[in-house]
Amino acid sequence: MIVSMKLHATREEIDRVCERVQEFGYRVHSIEGEERVVIGIVGTGDVTACLESIEAMPGVEKAVRISAPYKFVSREFRPAKTLVRVDGHEIGGDQFIVMAGPCSVESERQIMQAAEAVAAAGAHLLRGGAFKPRTSPYDFQGMEIDGLRLLRKAKQATGLAIVTEVMSDRDVELVAEYADVMQVGARNMQNFVLLKALGRCGRPVLLKRGMSSTIKELLMSAEYVVAHGNPNVILCERGIRTFETATRNTCDIAAVALLNELTHLPVILDPSHATGKRSLVPAVSRAAVAIGADGIIVEVHPCPEKAISDGAQSLHIEEFEAMMADLAPYIELWKAARMTLAAVAV
Amino acid sequence: MIVSMKLHATREEIDRVCERVQEFGYRVHSIEGEERVVIGIVGTGDVTACLESIEAMPGVEKAVRISAPYKFVSREFRPAKTLVRVDGHEIGGDQFIVMAGPCSVESERQIMQAAEAVAAAGAHLLRGGAFKPRTSPYDFQGMEIDGLRLLRKAKQATGLAIVTEVMSDRDVELVAEYADVMQVGARNMQNFVLLKALGRCGRPVLLKRGMSSTIKELLMSAEYVVAHGNPNVILCERGIRTFETATRNTCDIAAVALLNELTHLPVILDPSHATGKRSLVPAVSRAAVAIGADGIIVEVHPCPEKAISDGAQSLHIEEFEAMMADLAPYIELWKAARMTLAAVAV
Amino acid sequence: MIVSMKLHATREEIDRVCERVQEFGYRVHSIEGEERVVIGIVGTGDVTACLESIEAMPGVEKAVRISAPYKFVSREFRPAKTLVRVDGHEIGGDQFIVMAGPCSVESERQIMQAAEAVAAAGAHLLRGGAFKPRTSPYDFQGMEIDGLRLLRKAKQATGLAIVTEVMSDRDVELVAEYADVMQVGARNMQNFVLLKALGRCGRPVLLKRGMSSTIKELLMSAEYVVAHGNPNVILCERGIRTFETATRNTCDIAAVALLNELTHLPVILDPSHATGKRSLVPAVSRAAVAIGADGIIVEVHPCPEKAISDGAQSLHIEEFEAMMADLAPYIELWKAARMTLAAVAV
Amino acid sequence: MIVSMKLHATREEIDRVCERVQEFGYRVHSIEGEERVVIGIVGTGDVTACLESIEAMPGVEKAVRISAPYKFVSREFRPAKTLVRVDGHEIGGDQFIVMAGPCSVESERQIMQAAEAVAAAGAHLLRGGAFKPRTSPYDFQGMEIDGLRLLRKAKQATGLAIVTEVMSDRDVELVAEYADVMQVGARNMQNFVLLKALGRCGRPVLLKRGMSSTIKELLMSAEYVVAHGNPNVILCERGIRTFETATRNTCDIAAVALLNELTHLPVILDPSHATGKRSLVPAVSRAAVAIGADGIIVEVHPCPEKAISDGAQSLHIEEFEAMMADLAPYIELWKAARMTLAAVAV
Repeated sequence: MIVSMKLHATREEIDRVCERVQEFGYRVHSIEGEERVVIGIVGTGDVTACLESIEAMPGVEKAVRISAPYKFVSREFRPAKTLVRVDGHEIGGDQFIVMAGPCSVESERQIMQAAEAVAAAGAHLLRGGAFKPRTSPYDFQGMEIDGLRLLRKAKQATGLAIVTEVMSDRDVELVAEYADVMQVGARNMQNFVLLKALGRCGRPVLLKRGMSSTIKELLMSAEYVVAHGNPNVILCERGIRTFETATRNTCDIAAVALLNELTHLPVILDPSHATGKRSLVPAVSRAAVAIGADGIIVEVHPCPEKAISDGAQSLHIEEFEAMMADLAPYIELWKAARMTLAAVAV
Repeated sequence: MIVSMKLHATREEIDRVCERVQEFGYRVHSIEGEERVVIGIVGTGDVTACLESIEAMPGVEKAVRISAPYKFVSREFRPAKTLVRVDGHEIGGDQFIVMAGPCSVESERQIMQAAEAVAAAGAHLLRGGAFKPRTSPYDFQGMEIDGLRLLRKAKQATGLAIVTEVMSDRDVELVAEYADVMQVGARNMQNFVLLKALGRCGRPVLLKRGMSSTIKELLMSAEYVVAHGNPNVILCERGIRTFETATRNTCDIAAVALLNELTHLPVILDPSHATGKRSLVPAVSRAAVAIGADGIIVEVHPCPEKAISDGAQSLHIEEFEAMMADLAPYIELWKAARMTLAAVAV
Repeated sequence: MIVSMKLHATREEIDRVCERVQEFGYRVHSIEGEERVVIGIVGTGDVTACLESIEAMPGVEKAVRISAPYKFVSREFRPAKTLVRVDGHEIGGDQFIVMAGPCSVESERQIMQAAEAVAAAGAHLLRGGAFKPRTSPYDFQGMEIDGLRLLRKAKQATGLAIVTEVMSDRDVELVAEYADVMQVGARNMQNFVLLKALGRCGRPVLLKRGMSSTIKELLMSAEYVVAHGNPNVILCERGIRTFETATRNTCDIAAVALLNELTHLPVILDPSHATGKRSLVPAVSRAAVAIGADGIIVEVHPCPEKAISDGAQSLHIEEFEAMMADLAPYIELWKAARMTLAAVAV
Repeated sequence: MIVSMKLHATREEIDRVCERVQEFGYRVHSIEGEERVVIGIVGTGDVTACLESIEAMPGVEKAVRISAPYKFVSREFRPAKTLVRVDGHEIGGDQFIVMAGPCSVESERQIMQAAEAVAAAGAHLLRGGAFKPRTSPYDFQGMEIDGLRLLRKAKQATGLAIVTEVMSDRDVELVAEYADVMQVGARNMQNFVLLKALGRCGRPVLLKRGMSSTIKELLMSAEYVVAHGNPNVILCERGIRTFETATRNTCDIAAVALLNELTHLPVILDPSHATGKRSLVPAVSRAAVAIGADGIIVEVHPCPEKAISDGAQSLHIEEFEAMMADLAPYIELWKAARMTLAAVAV
């Protein structure tokens, strides 16, 4: 931690900061600049508490943390990539994972059609919401338990593993009965009560980045799950909220590459929410493969025009099939790169 | 609702949109422009479902909703301002409400000191968190039930009503036993399960704007609470997340004035989170009074340097006292303006 | 400057950073933490060059500047507020300055009507664009030299000083013949060629904050003008671009208070561009007075419905008159606060 | 254009809007909804003026433009992609264009070394700034005319075409003598005086997206250049400013795909400014190829640690060579996709 004092901080103010830091068990290195004093703080302890305390003291300009605020999820803690095993697939390994399906489970016919089609086209997991976070109280809120039952049925028919959203800590047990991967939606990325419950649930977690969350905050939320006992977290970039309205969100593609430096957790991309426009999904999916994401999660609907939600960003089944064909040679290059990486690691 | 078709939309595409709209029970007005066709849609029905469906159809450029997506909270639905009654105070009425206290309840000594001081300086409610949403799992998570008990004690000693945060639908009943106003934090503004539970809880709700939520989304979240049975919602502008990092958030002061046009619900401002800097709190509070907010919620700590959280933005007790004195003539002007408004209304 | 090294930086990498820093003439203080090495850098020299060089070196995590990058405009350099004198008025002094008028000069009749009305209602300067930066090449680009002549005529008739925009270094001399204050629009805040020319022009400059410029960047742009010879710079907060679209921009009201801490230059607020909605202008203007701005610049048009630009945010003349009356008691409080400040300074 | 009236707009207000619209030469279609009146406006005329005028009228909720505000640059105006010819290369054609070189021209030795290295590694154009827009007046402002001369020398030695920035309309002629492509920096994207001058300069223009400019505004700025006589405009996505600070900017990769739908102009990507971190440049460049950009512009320096600017985001020469090798198979796929497109077009 580094504390920079104000230009005209008094000797007394400087001394009081040094004392306070030492009360937290840290050692102090004071640097007297031409203009101001900067205090370097070394040791281990409760960094946040110390930092917040110091920032409130007179004469302090600002206090900056140097070490990363997360531990278990960092590459420095664990250099080798985490492999999240789901029903025979390894997310984070040498297979580019495709999760596909409708935004919401709407009916038996719809989810079965979707599941069969995406399975045939090469998807590995089926997505579909039974509990739906909707901006308006008047919009469809999901089929809930009936939706979960239909997802199970679709799994039995196709063999696809299931990823579905959980919105409250109260529902964690219920959803875990049906889901192979528990999805945390963007709006719940900082629902800490839910994250703690997921730390104890024994199922892999797909953690979507909040629409205005920083990469650091995403990692801190993952740290919640891991620190509460669950190492199997998959991160998901799904676009962030910016001033640009031509797309639904702004796809922060570089976040995928940066996360790959900062953490050992697998990272996938959601081109559907990142853009909100069906026509952009295939191109952004190619970019996801090329940049080295571990997979994608994409919305596909047997009849987007009749979809209750997200129709405009859902692919038709034929579009999904075409996209999978289009992606194939890029996925070949992706695999070759993984092999090279693995060879280097050995 | 207005649908604009693509430049080269075919007659067949246009016809299919018109048919689909009629299936939802709406009437259709088609306008043939020089360049493209625009379809006006009139009637009542499930707007969101219709809109999402249309947007997914071929030939459609975009579909735009004209009517507001909220109803109960709109000024058009209810022109007179809602008065939220809390322990003898009327929020939204002719009293400028001041809620003050520490970020977190930390100890009996701390909360009692804070409560007595802010009561003496003229505050109407005591704020203080017992359940704390923290970015890091390693930071202090609040005193929970013990914190609630201390808040009750502070209330007994000072007569101040209590506003405190609830983080999960599971805790609504518990918190409602102790709180006079149930606070929803910025990170939970779209925790819809929580909002529904608060709709049934029988206590006024203080709903903080999400750090990247639009004004419309804030109103939609309020609509959740109201539509589930609870008309007593107080909105709170607390700064939004932007590219600017010189302040903790960007205080969207104009939102207060705009909300006053759009909704009958009371609106208060949180100058502490909006700025993150103690020195800016008095100036921003003056602006809140001048723009016509119904009150402020401000962080005050007997010893900010020892605060476990938010020390840098918490006022010392003497600073709070000075601020209250500084605000007094502005509050006089505020009251005169309310009187004029009330006279006009009669 | 503080350099934090990567977790596994080698001794050699650390040494090379220290050497490089010394080549720039700085002294080095190395702090060996539990986890990583942090290097404090002391002395004076070309900070930016040094920082950019160090950041590019292997083993470096990040390099952070501690001292402010601006000098002449800082409060630390000059504690007393700068008074910009314009035609008998002192901006930054004990008069709350009101600049008002139409977005563009459109005709003699329009600008004379506007000028007379705003003068009668108590404005001190007349605003009006002769050179207009417009997003579209097909929109009205201003009356240029003819517009400047009409502004002069309006000045002769009313005695109001003139503030008008200059868009290119090529036009600085021309505009300076007619303008009492040279306005730099938001889109040109980082047009450094223009800023340098204005440093040499001998007229006060009104520098509007870029729509996505930080407060620090605004101060750096002011530093350009001052460093090139012109100390008479007035800063203007006019709203920033964020995700919120309910208002044209987001009015960063706290920036006014923060700028007042960081710089001695006067700061005014533009409630018209900050909101884009006529109905919000009076409320935001009250907030500007209350927070301690040195003035406002507001759009007023004799007939907003016929305005070529910005009609929706322009006040009718009667609205402006009503607003001036509404502001009067707030301005009284503002003056009292200035007196107190002045008394303290003595 | 669509005008939606307020909920309680009077018949008189509606009539006045209709009359005003007709004064602009448009036809009117009024739609009486359950709740409000919506007015569709058909015909051709001065849309912006009409829209701004209507928005200012009483009873109007909002006015929305339906047709795109740009014409010459739209795909609808010209379905076939524009090929910008530069020194034997076709940008927008079937060659993936690589522009590379240092941020600034610093010395003969530096630029010659850089030019030779990037030429050898397969770049097509040499980038390098002679006029530098710098946030601080105290930072290196470029070698100006001497820098231009060195760029010419580098061109003579390597055969690489030159792309370099022009910052003022005053310098257009001078820069055009030396540059094959005239670069407009992000800060000048809305320097309309400069854009007009470039419309008349006879050289291709590389137009970088402003750091907080929308895609629509980027296209409007391109429209300025084209409407003033220069059809040879290359667009460049270089990252936008958002709340995320882990990267220098947020790379809006989807903008590349969306621009490809909206315009026939070539689009390239700048992975160096988009990320600000050298280690992310190769991954983002792969994404640029995969999403179908027409090229990239990338910073390469013989010794980034000694670079005067942008060292942290500049590749070492060996890194650039490695990246070019890494990109090769992706570029093969890119070429195959172009062939398919071309075949379809025939």
